[in-house]
Amino acid sequence: MGAPAPSPLPASTTPIPLDVPRLRQLLTDPATESVRRRVFTLFEEPVFGLRYGEATADERARTRARWDRMVSAGLFVGCLTSHLPGAPAGAGAAARSRHDAVMECVAYLDHSLEVAIGVHVGLFGGTIALLGSADQAAAWLPGVEAHTMRGCFALTELGHGSNARGIETTAVWDGASGGFILHTPRETAQKYWVGGAAETARWTTAFAQLTVGGVAVGVHPFVVRIRADDGSPVAGVTTADCGVKGGLNGVDNGRIWFDHVWVPRGQMLAGENAVSGAGVYTSRHATPDARFAAQLAALTGGRVGIARLVNNQAKLGLTIAVRYALSRRAFAPSPGAPEARLLDYASHRRRLMVPLATTVVYALAADALKAEWNAHSERKDADGRRVGVTKRLHVLSAGAKALCSWHARDTLQECREACGGQGYKADNRIAGVRATHDISCTFEGDNLVLMHTVAKALLGDYAAVLGARRKPGAPSPSPPLPPFGELLAFLNAPRVGSTPLPPARGGPRDVTSPAFVASVLRAHAATCMTDLAAAYAAASKVASPFGAWNAVATAAAATAAAVMAVHGHAVGSAAVAAAAAAAARDGRAGVAEPLALAVHLHGLGLIGASPGYLRSGALRLDEAAAVEAAVEDGCAALARVARGLVDAFGIPEPLLAPIAGDWVAHNSRARL
Amino acid sequence: MGAPAPSPLPASTTPIPLDVPRLRQLLTDPATESVRRRVFTLFEEPVFGLRYGEATADERARTRARWDRMVSAGLFVGCLTSHLPGAPAGAGAAARSRHDAVMECVAYLDHSLEVAIGVHVGLFGGTIALLGSADQAAAWLPGVEAHTMRGCFALTELGHGSNARGIETTAVWDGASGGFILHTPRETAQKYWVGGAAETARWTTAFAQLTVGGVAVGVHPFVVRIRADDGSPVAGVTTADCGVKGGLNGVDNGRIWFDHVWVPRGQMLAGENAVSGAGVYTSRHATPDARFAAQLAALTGGRVGIARLVNNQAKLGLTIAVRYALSRRAFAPSPGAPEARLLDYASHRRRLMVPLATTVVYALAADALKAEWNAHSERKDADGRRVGVTKRLHVLSAGAKALCSWHARDTLQECREACGGQGYKADNRIAGVRATHDISCTFEGDNLVLMHTVAKALLGDYAAVLGARRKPGAPSPSPPLPPFGELLAFLNAPRVGSTPLPPARGGPRDVTSPAFVASVLRAHAATCMTDLAAAYAAASKVASPFGAWNAVATAAAATAAAVMAVHGHAVGSAAVAAAAAAAARDGRAGVAEPLALAVHLHGLGLIGASPGYLRSGALRLDEAAAVEAAVEDGCAALARVARGLVDAFGIPEPLLAPIAGDWVAHNSRARL
Ligand SMILES: Cc1cc2nc3c(=O)[nH]c(=O)nc-3n(C[C@H](O)[C@H](O)[C@H](O)COP(=O)(O)OP(=O)(O)OC[C@H]3O[C@@H](n4cnc5c(N)ncnc54)[C@H](O)[C@@H]3O)c2cc1C
Ligand SMILES: Cc1cc2nc3c(=O)[nH]c(=O)nc-3n(C[C@H](O)[C@H](O)[C@H](O)COP(=O)(O)OP(=O)(O)OC[C@H]3O[C@@H](n4cnc5c(N)ncnc54)[C@H](O)[C@@H]3O)c2cc1C
Repeated sequence: MGAPAPSPLPASTTPIPLDVPRLRQLLTDPATESVRRRVFTLFEEPVFGLRYGEATADERARTRARWDRMVSAGLFVGCLTSHLPGAPAGAGAAARSRHDAVMECVAYLDHSLEVAIGVHVGLFGGTIALLGSADQAAAWLPGVEAHTMRGCFALTELGHGSNARGIETTAVWDGASGGFILHTPRETAQKYWVGGAAETARWTTAFAQLTVGGVAVGVHPFVVRIRADDGSPVAGVTTADCGVKGGLNGVDNGRIWFDHVWVPRGQMLAGENAVSGAGVYTSRHATPDARFAAQLAALTGGRVGIARLVNNQAKLGLTIAVRYALSRRAFAPSPGAPEARLLDYASHRRRLMVPLATTVVYALAADALKAEWNAHSERKDADGRRVGVTKRLHVLSAGAKALCSWHARDTLQECREACGGQGYKADNRIAGVRATHDISCTFEGDNLVLMHTVAKALLGDYAAVLGARRKPGAPSPSPPLPPFGELLAFLNAPRVGSTPLPPARGGPRDVTSPAFVASVLRAHAATCMTDLAAAYAAASKVASPFGAWNAVATAAAATAAAVMAVHGHAVGSAAVAAAAAAAARDGRAGVAEPLALAVHLHGLGLIGASPGYLRSGALRLDEAAAVEAAVEDGCAALARVARGLVDAFGIPEPLLAPIAGDWVAHNSRARL
Repeated sequence: MGAPAPSPLPASTTPIPLDVPRLRQLLTDPATESVRRRVFTLFEEPVFGLRYGEATADERARTRARWDRMVSAGLFVGCLTSHLPGAPAGAGAAARSRHDAVMECVAYLDHSLEVAIGVHVGLFGGTIALLGSADQAAAWLPGVEAHTMRGCFALTELGHGSNARGIETTAVWDGASGGFILHTPRETAQKYWVGGAAETARWTTAFAQLTVGGVAVGVHPFVVRIRADDGSPVAGVTTADCGVKGGLNGVDNGRIWFDHVWVPRGQMLAGENAVSGAGVYTSRHATPDARFAAQLAALTGGRVGIARLVNNQAKLGLTIAVRYALSRRAFAPSPGAPEARLLDYASHRRRLMVPLATTVVYALAADALKAEWNAHSERKDADGRRVGVTKRLHVLSAGAKALCSWHARDTLQECREACGGQGYKADNRIAGVRATHDISCTFEGDNLVLMHTVAKALLGDYAAVLGARRKPGAPSPSPPLPPFGELLAFLNAPRVGSTPLPPARGGPRDVTSPAFVASVLRAHAATCMTDLAAAYAAASKVASPFGAWNAVATAAAATAAAVMAVHGHAVGSAAVAAAAAAAARDGRAGVAEPLALAVHLHGLGLIGASPGYLRSGALRLDEAAAVEAAVEDGCAALARVARGLVDAFGIPEPLLAPIAGDWVAHNSRARL
C-alpha cells in the first residue's frame, strides 16, 4: 500500500501541517545531536563571541584562539586516528559523523575557522591519511589530530591553480643522499594561497613534479617542514603572506618558495606510489591520468564538505531574513491600516521562498552525498587498502560543490538586499558571511571548471551508454555500469527532439504535479545531453579538441547543471516519499507536506528561471505562464510555513542576529 | 546621405577598427579632462594610497583625511555657490560638469569617500539648494561648500526606510517661541543610517512630520545642529554609531534622537513651503502627494549620480579582469603547446564580454540622463525659481539607478570569480569594491522598490496613452505628452499578442541585425505593458488595491526592466548612429564599429538570458538558438577589441591592480 502523496501545491486555504522537531531530525542528523549541543555550548564562551570590523591581525589571532579552544575542549579527538588500523570497528565511521557535526556548527559561527580546520584536518591530515603508507599515517596523524603538528596543503602555485597538473615545483630523487631535492625553479612555481602558510603552519604537504632517475613521473605530495615549531624559519624555505582578502581574513594564506630543500625518502607519501631506497619508482596506478587523479583525493572529500557546509551559510542568511520579513513592516495596505509585513509582499516572497526551497533540496542532496562518501571511505580493497575515489563520487562532489556554493552566494546576496539597510549591518551577519563565503566558489576547484569536469565526464558516459545500446541484441548495460549511469538513466525516458521543437501536441500538462517537474527536468537534461554530444561531435570534425570543446563550453556547463538538477530533484523526491511512507506508518503529518512543497517549488523555480527549458522544448510555450503562476503560488504557500522551516534548521539564537529578534528593543536608546 | 551602418556582428576574419582615444572622448567628457587630470594627480599623494584590512576606526580617519585634502586642494570650490543668484551666467552648468568629473575620479578610488562627499554636497547641500529659500541658500551653502558647515541627511528612521512618508519624527510649530519643537516620539523614530552622523557631521537636514496649528502637513526638512563644531554634544540631541558594515566603512553612519529640540523658524527650509511668523503655513504645492515628492528632490539627483558612478565601479572591475584574462594562462590546448590565455576560452569570454557590452551601454545611458538632469537643473520658472523634478526624470533616474547598480553588483562578482583566487586578493581591488558597492542597491531607494515605482508610473502613462487613443478622431497625443510618453512610443509599433503566442509566421529573422534587437526589445516591452495593465485591471476587480498590486508585483518589476531596456538600447543605438555619422564626415573609423558591437551584444544578451522574451512571444522559439549562437559570436568579436575598450575607460594605472600588470614580477621573491 503506497503512502498517500502529499500535495505539492496546497490551495491557499488548505492548512499545511508542519512538525518542526521531526523536520529538524531530517535536516540535522539526530545521532550527532549531542555533539552539536556540546559545540554550541562551547560557543557561548567569550572567545567565540561574534566580532566585526577588526584589523586583519586581530581577526587571525581570534581565529587561532577559537581553534585552540576547540582543540583543548577535545572536539577533534579521534577525527583522524579513529581511521588508523587497530582502531575499534565502527570507530572510523562514528568519528566521521562526529567531525561532520562539529564542522556543521563551526560553519554557522565563523567561516575562517571552518576553513582553517578544513585545511588542517581535511587537506593536510586527509592527504596523509589517504596517500600515506600505514606507517606514515600512524606516525603523523596523532600529531595532526592533537594539533601539535600544524599543517597546510600546498598544491596551488602563482602560475597554476585550476590546472594543478601544470605545477612547476620540482622534486628530484637524489640517490646519493637517499632523499628528494624540492625546489621552486621560477617565480610562477611559488606556492600560493596556502591556508595557514603565512604564520600558523609548521608543516605542509607540498605537491611537486617528481623525477626519478631522470624520468618525470608526475605530481606527488611530500610532507615538508616549513618553519620550526617556535615559528622561526627553516633553511631553504621562504614564506610570505598573501595579505588581506575580500573576506576569510581569519585564515593566513601564504606563499612558499623552496630552495633546494632536502626531503628524506620517508617523507614522500608512499601509500600509492613510492621510491625504494635503491631509487626504484613504483606506482599502484596503471596510467599517469589515474595517478594524478589519485593525488587529489583529499580534495574530493573537501568538496563533499563544502557542498554541505555552504548550505548552512545559506540557511543562516535565510533564517535571519525570514524572521526579519515577519517582523519588519513597510507601507500600509490602506490608509490607517497597520503596515504590511515584508513577507506579505509577493515580490519579497519570491526573492526568499525559491532560495529557501532550493536550500532544503540542496541540503538533502549534500547530506546524501556525504553519506555516500563516508560509506565509500570505509570501504577497503582485498589488500585492506582504501578504495580510490570513484568517478561517480568525483563527479557528484564536483557538481554539488559548484552548484551549492553558487546557490549560497546568490541566496546570501538576496537575503542581504531583502533586509534593506539592516542586511548590510555587520552584526546582522549576512553581509559578512556573504563576503567570506564568496571564495567557496573558487577554492577546492573553480566552480566553472568543475562544471566543465562534470560535463566532460557525462559526455564520456553518454558515449558509453549509446555504444552499449547500439550493439544489436545487446542487453541494456548491467553493472559495471558506466560510473554514473544511474544519473543518465533518464536517457531511457521518451526523448524529446532537439531544438527547434516540433509543435507541441496535446494540451498543457498539470504544472502542479510533481511528475510534471520530474519529467521536464529529465527531458531537458536528456535533450541538452543529446545536443551537446552532437555539437561536440560536429565540432570535432572541423576543430582541434581544444577548439571543439571551446565551441560547446557554454552548452556543456548548462548540460552539467541540467543533469545535476535531475539528481537533486530526485534526491528531494525520495526524501518526500520516505517521509510520506513514515507518515503512513505512524499517522504523523508535518514533514512530507512542507518537504513536498519545497521540492516542487525548487523544481518549478529552476524550470521557470532559464530560457533553456523552453529552448530545449522540455517546457512548452503554452505551459510557461502556468509555471510562472505556480511559482508565485508556491512562494505564497511556502511563506506560510517559512518560519517553521527555518526553525527546523536548528541554528541557535546566539548565532543569529539582532534583526532576527526584537530589533526595536535592541536599538533602543537605553541600550547605548 | 545616411551614414553607413557599421556591422554589429563582424565575421571572425573582419578586422574591427578601434580608435581608443576617440572612443575615450565619447566615454569621458573631454571638456572636463583637465579636472580629471588634476584629481588623478592629487591621488598620487600618499594619503590617497590604496590600503586594505584596516580596522574601522582607521578606515574612517583615512576617508576624512582624503576628504580634507580634496577640500584644501580646492576641488569643491564653486560646486554649490555657483548656483546662487548673482553667480555669472553659465557658472552653474560649468560647476556641475566639474563636480561630476571630480566624483567620477573618486568613484575609481574610494567608494566611502564618494559616498561621504555625496551625502554632504549632494544630499545635505543639495537639499538646502533645492528646498531652501534664496536667503537660506545664500547663508548656508558657502559654509557647506567650504566644508566648515559639515552636514548630513537625516531622512531614514529605524522604522521607516523605503516608506519615507511614514517617518515618525515630529516637528510642531510653537507660536509662543516662534520656532519648531523637533522630537523623536518613540524608538522606531530614531534617525538611522545617517551618513556622517556618528562622528563627522555637525549639522543635518532632519526630515520630520510637521504640525502647524494642530494640522498635520506632512514631511518637511529642518536644518538642525547635531553637535558643536568641536564635536561635543548639543542639548537635546543624542547620536550613536550604526557600527561596522559589510563595506563602506569609511563612512560613519549614525543614529539620532531628538529630545524636544527647539529649532528657530528660519531653519525650516522655506523655498517650497513656509510657516510665517504668525504661524500661517503656505505651500507651493497643490496636493500633499506633490508636496511630499518635492521634499525628496535631492534624492533624484543622487540617483542620477549613482546610476553614473556605479558604472565606473563596473568599469574598474572589467578593466582589471580583462587585462588579467589576456595575461593569465591555464591549460595547454595540445601537449607541449603554451597554455591558453583565459580570454581564449569561450566560457570566459561569455562571462566578461556581455557585462562589458552592457557597461558601455549603461554608461552612455547614464551620461545622457546626467546631461538631461543637469540641463533640467538649470531651468527656472517664470518667477526665477528652480523647476521641480519632472515625472520623466524621477522615473528614469529610479530605473537607471536600480538597473545600473544591480548590473555593477553582478559584473563585479563575475570579475571576482573570473580572476580566480587573485580576484579575492584585496590589492586586486575587485572584492573590496564589490563589497562596498553592494549597498548602492539599497540606499537612495531600494532597487526593487524603485522598479515598482517605475512600473506604477508606466501603468499610469499607459492608461493615459490608451485614453487619448480611444477618443475617436483624437489626434495622437502631442506635447504635453504624458510625462514619459516618449518611452512608450514603442506602443505604436505593430503589436504582438499576449501569451500564449499564435504560431510564428515567416522564417526566423536575422538575429545579427540591430533592427532585430530593437524590435524584439520593443515588442517584449509592449506585451509586458499590455499584459500588466490587463492583469492589474482584472486583479483590481476582485482585490483591494494592495492585493491587486501584489498579484502583479513580479510582472510589474519585469515590465519596468523591459521598458528601461528599450530606453537603454535606444540611447546606445543613437550613440552608434552619431558615431557613424561623424565617421562618414571625417572618414575616421574606430568608434562606431566597437560601439555597434557592444550595443548589439548587450541587446542580444538581454534577449537571450531571460525566458520572458520567449514567453511574451517577442522572440520566437525558432530564433532562440540563433540568438544564443550570436551571443557567443558577439563575445568572440568583442574579445578582440576588449583591451582597447577598457583602455578607453581611461582609468589611471595606479588605480588598477597588480593582476592588471606584470603580476609575476609583482609577486617575485625579490620584492618581499
Ligand atoms: C582564500 C583562498 C584559499 C585557498 N587555499 C588553498 C590551499 O590551502 N591550498 C592550495 O593549494 N590552494 C588554495 N587555494 C587556491 C585555490 O584552490 C585556487 O585559487 C583555485 O584552484 C583556482 O585557481 P586559480 O586561482 O589559479 O584560478 P585560475 O585557474 O587561474 O582560474 C581563473 C579563472 O579562469 C577560469 N578558467 C581557468 N581554466 C579554464 C578553462 N579551462 N576553461 C574555462 N575557464 C577557465 C576559471 O573559471 C577562473 O574563473 C586557495 C585560494 C584562495 C583564494
Ligand atoms: C550604508 C548606508 C548609508 C545610508 N545613508 C543614508 C543617509 O545618509 N541618510 C538617510 O536618510 N538614509 C540613509 N540610508 C538609508 C537607506 O536609504 C535605506 O536603507 C533604504 O531607503 C531602504 O530602507 P530600509 O533599509 O528601511 O529597508 P526597508 O524599507 O525596510 O526594505 C527592506 C526590504 O523590503 C523590501 N520592500 C520594502 N517595501 C516593499 C514593498 N512595498 N514591496 C516590495 N518589497 C518591499 C525592499 O525591497 C527591501 O528589500 C543609508 C543606508 C545604508 C545601509
